[in-house]
Amino acid sequence: MVRKTTIVPVNRSLLPQIKAIIDNKTKPLGALGQLEDTATTLALVQQSLQPAIHAPHILVFAADHGVARSGVSAYPQSVTWQMVMNFLAGGAAINVFANQHNVALKIIDVGVNHIFEAHPLLEDAKIAMGTHNFYDRAAMTREQLHEAFHVGREQVEKAIGAGSNTIGFGEMGIANTSSAALIMSYCLNLPIADCTGRGTGLNDQQVQNKIALLGTVKKQRGPLHSSDDILQHVGGFEIAAMASAMRYAASRQLTILIDGFICTAAYLCVYREHPDIADYVIFCHQSQEKGHQQLLETLKAKPLLALNLRLGEGTGCALVIPMLYSAVNFFNTMASFEGANVDGAS
Amino acid sequence: MVRKTTIVPVNRSLLPQIKAIIDNKTKPLGALGQLEDTATTLALVQQSLQPAIHAPHILVFAADHGVARSGVSAYPQSVTWQMVMNFLAGGAAINVFANQHNVALKIIDVGVNHIFEAHPLLEDAKIAMGTHNFYDRAAMTREQLHEAFHVGREQVEKAIGAGSNTIGFGEMGIANTSSAALIMSYCLNLPIADCTGRGTGLNDQQVQNKIALLGTVKKQRGPLHSSDDILQHVGGFEIAAMASAMRYAASRQLTILIDGFICTAAYLCVYREHPDIADYVIFCHQSQEKGHQQLLETLKAKPLLALNLRLGEGTGCALVIPMLYSAVNFFNTMASFEGANVDGAS
Repeated sequence: MVRKTTIVPVNRSLLPQIKAIIDNKTKPLGALGQLEDTATTLALVQQSLQPAIHAPHILVFAADHGVARSGVSAYPQSVTWQMVMNFLAGGAAINVFANQHNVALKIIDVGVNHIFEAHPLLEDAKIAMGTHNFYDRAAMTREQLHEAFHVGREQVEKAIGAGSNTIGFGEMGIANTSSAALIMSYCLNLPIADCTGRGTGLNDQQVQNKIALLGTVKKQRGPLHSSDDILQHVGGFEIAAMASAMRYAASRQLTILIDGFICTAAYLCVYREHPDIADYVIFCHQSQEKGHQQLLETLKAKPLLALNLRLGEGTGCALVIPMLYSAVNFFNTMASFEGANVDGAS
Repeated sequence: MVRKTTIVPVNRSLLPQIKAIIDNKTKPLGALGQLEDTATTLALVQQSLQPAIHAPHILVFAADHGVARSGVSAYPQSVTWQMVMNFLAGGAAINVFANQHNVALKIIDVGVNHIFEAHPLLEDAKIAMGTHNFYDRAAMTREQLHEAFHVGREQVEKAIGAGSNTIGFGEMGIANTSSAALIMSYCLNLPIADCTGRGTGLNDQQVQNKIALLGTVKKQRGPLHSSDDILQHVGGFEIAAMASAMRYAASRQLTILIDGFICTAAYLCVYREHPDIADYVIFCHQSQEKGHQQLLETLKAKPLLALNLRLGEGTGCALVIPMLYSAVNFFNTMASFEGANVDGAS
């Protein structure tokens, strides 16, 4: 996908110095666990021995899914636009956590089935009033896919313009766990049942129906190989935009925060074609949604949090923000054994 | 232990209202996972539908252990006082995280083998220059145990005087995983090998030596039943003070934050005699230290974090502070379905 830009692996020449700094802090070796890994990632991505989080952003891409009309979600499609209105009014979970941690929040309408009035938090990048129902036909045209890619790059460019070096990604789109389940199933060659969960709260019978429907989609569609084909046929505008945004963010050497199941599915589309993106990524939350754990294992990812959230919106990214500051703060300000005159291990 | 004060279960009459508030927030039912549990705990402990975190404190109890002379730690005993100096100078991990989250930090010398000069962060409550080596004899006298209990209560009283309704507990004491392992083994009737880990970084052979030594202690000491007997014989001053502080904090209906393995061992001493303390507790971090996971399972506790920390100092409590604010913030300020005109599940 978008082969014009390239993702280079981070330059690891600083790694010995980074490790020496961490190991000389006044604590047993390795005792800060995943915070040490996080500090290492930030220092390598930033190519700095004084890493810092600048103007963290969370970009929430929102779009509707034609497949919602097939009854794969516990909530009606109208909830997508209603939740966007809730984001704009400041009433959603992501607003609460973004405000708490002083994170810049942008809501990007890539294809919600509703016309919104202009609002400072809202980016109008609507491609259509939602995707086609992929039960009947491809979710979007190739042109629409490229439009979604363009939106993703553009939004990252804007965040960079606002001074950001750290971007979290979130999404809103009723029925988008169906899209994410198909993406996972295609990319990893797994049975659809292994990738399909309760979404916002389906019961057992409804999950079975969802699996049956998605299985039919896969059978009708036949094999899909490239990430572009998969995104075009069974993706969503918000998922395609996220994938492109992540890819572009890595090419610009920003730190990328990955939220839950849908966000990870978008990441997977990029990762399988550009595995070096992994150098730029911090996984934030392991979701309750079935499939996410296996997806994370495939990616060898251990998120910083596992709070049983299943909300999307970038909430996992927002909750991780203070831990990023903890990582840079210990790296930059904690005393060394020599500086504090503390004896080392015998 | 300290049977004079009582711990009452929280009054659950507010529970239906708390649940209604959470379930009406604009999110799928249960979608905020452990943050919903945390908000519920805070609201019940505070008996309030507008819970708030006031003047959070972290009390780090520090003391030396005679058993350190038997070579059960990777670090020499001198590290206890050197790390206390590091706390006072602001250079340790707990300083970094407490500063980041605006948490009041107190270092309480209950028995460090060093004379400190007065310092604003330091509470001088020294009982002795460390415990006796419990390989040879009881770690402390009954009088010293009661002194440690008194210190714990007194420090909680001071935090309450400073307006705190939320107290985290941490510790510093070279060799105190040995003490915690014996406490766990006695309280839960488990083989010492199941309770003994690497502490600050023992290798396999050193862990075997530690297990052998602690097994000998258990054999020589014979059965110990009450928490007071266990703490007196194989505890430490900082562990006894923490246990008493937790117990008193629960009796005063504060929220109690539990850090890692040693802190949980102190809690276990109280819990087995006053199980209602569980109503007041938020478990912060699941440690890498062997035994902690089993200890948490016994207590049916699922900490908010599992970052592979193995540091103590109350660092897990400090890292959880922003999540406590996230819990009260969503509870108090997130929009309801009705308020935001968002449709519910079908």
